[in-house]
Amino acid sequence: MNDTYSIGNVRRPAFLSLPERSSKPRDLGLTHVLDKGQTVQSTQSVLATSAPLIDVWKFGWGTAYIDTALTEKLALLRSAEIRSCLGGTLLEISWAQNKAPECLNWAAEVGFDAVEISRGVAAMTVSDKRELLCRAAESFEVVSEVGSKDPNEVLTPEEWTSEVAGDLAAGARWVITEGRESGTVGIYREDGSIREDIVAAAVRGGGIERILFEAPRKDQQAWLIRTFGPEVNLANIACDEVLAVETLRLGLRADTCDVARSWQLT
Amino acid sequence: MNDTYSIGNVRRPAFLSLPERSSKPRDLGLTHVLDKGQTVQSTQSVLATSAPLIDVWKFGWGTAYIDTALTEKLALLRSAEIRSCLGGTLLEISWAQNKAPECLNWAAEVGFDAVEISRGVAAMTVSDKRELLCRAAESFEVVSEVGSKDPNEVLTPEEWTSEVAGDLAAGARWVITEGRESGTVGIYREDGSIREDIVAAAVRGGGIERILFEAPRKDQQAWLIRTFGPEVNLANIACDEVLAVETLRLGLRADTCDVARSWQLT
Amino acid sequence: MNDTYSIGNVRRPAFLSLPERSSKPRDLGLTHVLDKGQTVQSTQSVLATSAPLIDVWKFGWGTAYIDTALTEKLALLRSAEIRSCLGGTLLEISWAQNKAPECLNWAAEVGFDAVEISRGVAAMTVSDKRELLCRAAESFEVVSEVGSKDPNEVLTPEEWTSEVAGDLAAGARWVITEGRESGTVGIYREDGSIREDIVAAAVRGGGIERILFEAPRKDQQAWLIRTFGPEVNLANIACDEVLAVETLRLGLRADTCDVARSWQLT
Repeated sequence: MNDTYSIGNVRRPAFLSLPERSSKPRDLGLTHVLDKGQTVQSTQSVLATSAPLIDVWKFGWGTAYIDTALTEKLALLRSAEIRSCLGGTLLEISWAQNKAPECLNWAAEVGFDAVEISRGVAAMTVSDKRELLCRAAESFEVVSEVGSKDPNEVLTPEEWTSEVAGDLAAGARWVITEGRESGTVGIYREDGSIREDIVAAAVRGGGIERILFEAPRKDQQAWLIRTFGPEVNLANIACDEVLAVETLRLGLRADTCDVARSWQLT
Repeated sequence: MNDTYSIGNVRRPAFLSLPERSSKPRDLGLTHVLDKGQTVQSTQSVLATSAPLIDVWKFGWGTAYIDTALTEKLALLRSAEIRSCLGGTLLEISWAQNKAPECLNWAAEVGFDAVEISRGVAAMTVSDKRELLCRAAESFEVVSEVGSKDPNEVLTPEEWTSEVAGDLAAGARWVITEGRESGTVGIYREDGSIREDIVAAAVRGGGIERILFEAPRKDQQAWLIRTFGPEVNLANIACDEVLAVETLRLGLRADTCDVARSWQLT
Repeated sequence: MNDTYSIGNVRRPAFLSLPERSSKPRDLGLTHVLDKGQTVQSTQSVLATSAPLIDVWKFGWGTAYIDTALTEKLALLRSAEIRSCLGGTLLEISWAQNKAPECLNWAAEVGFDAVEISRGVAAMTVSDKRELLCRAAESFEVVSEVGSKDPNEVLTPEEWTSEVAGDLAAGARWVITEGRESGTVGIYREDGSIREDIVAAAVRGGGIERILFEAPRKDQQAWLIRTFGPEVNLANIACDEVLAVETLRLGLRADTCDVARSWQLT
C-alpha cells in the first residue's frame, strides 16, 4: 500500500473512494465535543489520536468552575489547536447571580477561546441574551445556543429562525442547537427522534455552515450526515466517540455507508 | 480572579454563591463510587483529579476476587485517603458456600477497609445477615445493604424502616439502599423512577446521614439532591462521573441549578 | 490466604468453588471485544490488566481505515497474544467498490491476523460472500458473520443453520452471529430480547464451539452463560467490560450466581 491520502493531516490508505473532508482549521465539517469531566490523562489520551478531528472542546455546564485540572487541560487543548469553550449553564448561573462580568473575566484570565451563550435554565429574555452575547463577543468567539432544556417549552419554527438569525447578526460565530447530552430536547423529541421542521427552521435562520447541531446519539449523527452531508457540523460528541463519528462522516459504518454514493467523492 | 475558596481541599474561583460542601473526612455528603473493573491506569487517572471528591470506592460484586490489579489499586486508594469496600455479592456467594469466614479473612489480608453486607441474591434471612454483619464489624467498617435485586421481591415500607434500623443497631456504619448499577430495583421502579415512600421509610429507619443512596442515574441523583440537599450521600456513582455529580450537588448543572436558591449558601 | 489457583494465567484466591475456565490459547470460552476507537493509551490500559481474558480484538466497522494509532495498537495486541480482526463492514464497502483484493492486501500488510466476512450492508449474495471468504481464508483466520443489520430483514431458522454450516465448510474458523454494538438485530429482537429459535438454529449449523455470539448487553451475556455455560464464546464485548463479563462467566455477579451450582465445578 504505497498510495495514501490525507484527511485532517492524517495519512490514510487510499484504496476506497470516500467523501471529501476538510482539514483544520475548518470552516465546515466541525466536530465539537462535550467534556463531562475528563481527567488530564484521558484528555491526553484522546488528543494523542484524535486532535486533528476535533475543532471545539466544550467544558460541559459548570464543570470548568470546579475542575482542578482546568489549567492543564486548557494548555493541552491550545497545543492541539483545539478551541476551548466554556459551557453555557455556568454563564447563565452567573448572570442569575448578577455575576456575568466576573464569569467572563475569569474565563478570559484562565484562557478560554470561546464561550457559549444560552438561555436554557435562567429566566432570560432574548434581549437579555443578546446583551450578554454582545459583551462576550468583545473577548471571545461566541457559540450561541438556541432551544430550551425543558421538553415542555418548545419554540415555534418561526421563533427558531428568528432567534438563530438574530444571534448571528448580534455577533455569534456559530449557533448551537440544543439537544443536551441526552439528545431528547430542542431539535429532538423526547424519544430522540428528529424534529425535522425545527432543523429546517434553524438552517433557514443561519445557513448550514453557521449551525453546530448537538447530536449525542448515533442515529441523530447519521440522520444529519445523510441529510446534510459529511461536512455537517456536529456538536456534543462524547470525547471517546470522535473516531466513530468520523467513520460515520466518511460512510465507513453501516448507518451511513450510502453516503459515499450520495455525496461528491474524492 | 484572586478570590478563591476551597471545597474538598480544592481551590476554586469564588465569584458564585454556592451551597456549602464539607471536606474529607466527611460525615455527610459522601460520594461512593462503583468500580466495575477499572484498570490501574484508569484508577490513577480518576484519583489524580477526583480524589478529594470520593469517600468510598466499592469493588463491584465479585470483581475483587479476580482483579489482578487489586493490590495495586488498594494501595492507590489508601494513598488517596479513600475507603476501599468489598462488594456484597462476593460475600453472599461465599456465605452460600459456607466460606464467609474465609472471605472476610482474605479481605482483611489484602487490606480492605470496609465490606458490604447484603442479602440480595443468596437465600439469607435477616437474622443470617445480622450474624454476618456482627462478625464483619469486628474487622471492618460495615456498609449494610437493604433491598432486593429482584424487581418482584419488594419489601414494604415498614420492613425497610425496620431492617435499616436493625442493621445500624447491629453495628453497621452505614446502610446502602439497593439500586444496582442500573437504578431499576430497590428504591427505584423498573423504569428508574423513585419510590418516594421507600426512600422516606429508609430515612425514618436511620436518619439521612447514615444512608448511602445507590443512585447511578442523573435524574435519580438530581432528585435526591433537590429533596435532601447537596450533602446527601450518593452511592454507585460511575468512576468517570464524579465531577459531573459534584456539579449537580453544587447547582452547577441545569438539573439542579435551583439548589443554590433552596439550600443554605456560603 | 496461601491457597490460590490460576485462571487464564492469573493467580487468584481459592476459597470459592467456581466453574472451570480454560486458559489462552482457548478453544472454547473465547472473549471477543469490539474496539470502537480506543486510543493507544486506553489500549495499553486494558491490556495491562485484561490481556489473559481477551482472545480476539475487532477493530469495529471501518475504524481501522482511519485509525492513526493502528500500527501501534496492532503491535500491542501481538505482544499480548490477542488476535487482531478487521471489521466486516470495511471489507463489504471495499467489495461494493470492487476493491476487496486491495482491502485484503492492505490488511495483510499492516498485520491483521483475522478478518470478518459479512454481508450486513452490501448487496451480497451468499455465493458472493463465500467467494470472498475463500479468498480471505488463504491469508487470514476468517470470522464469518451471519445475520443482517436491518431489523426488517430476518433470516428463517433454516437459513441460519444452512448459512452457518456452509460458511464453516467454506473455511471460516468461526461464525459470528450478528447483534451489532446495540444488541437489537440478528439473534436479538429490537428490544434486545433473545430469539431463542435463531440461537438454536445457529448452534445446529456449527456446534457451540464454532459460534461467537455478539452479546453487547449484560442480560444477553447472562442468558447465554446460563444457557450454554461459562465457556460460551462471547463477542462484541466493550473493551472496558472484560472483567465484568469474566465475573458473569464465573458466577460472581447476581445475574449468574446460580452458574456455579449448574455447571461443573473445580
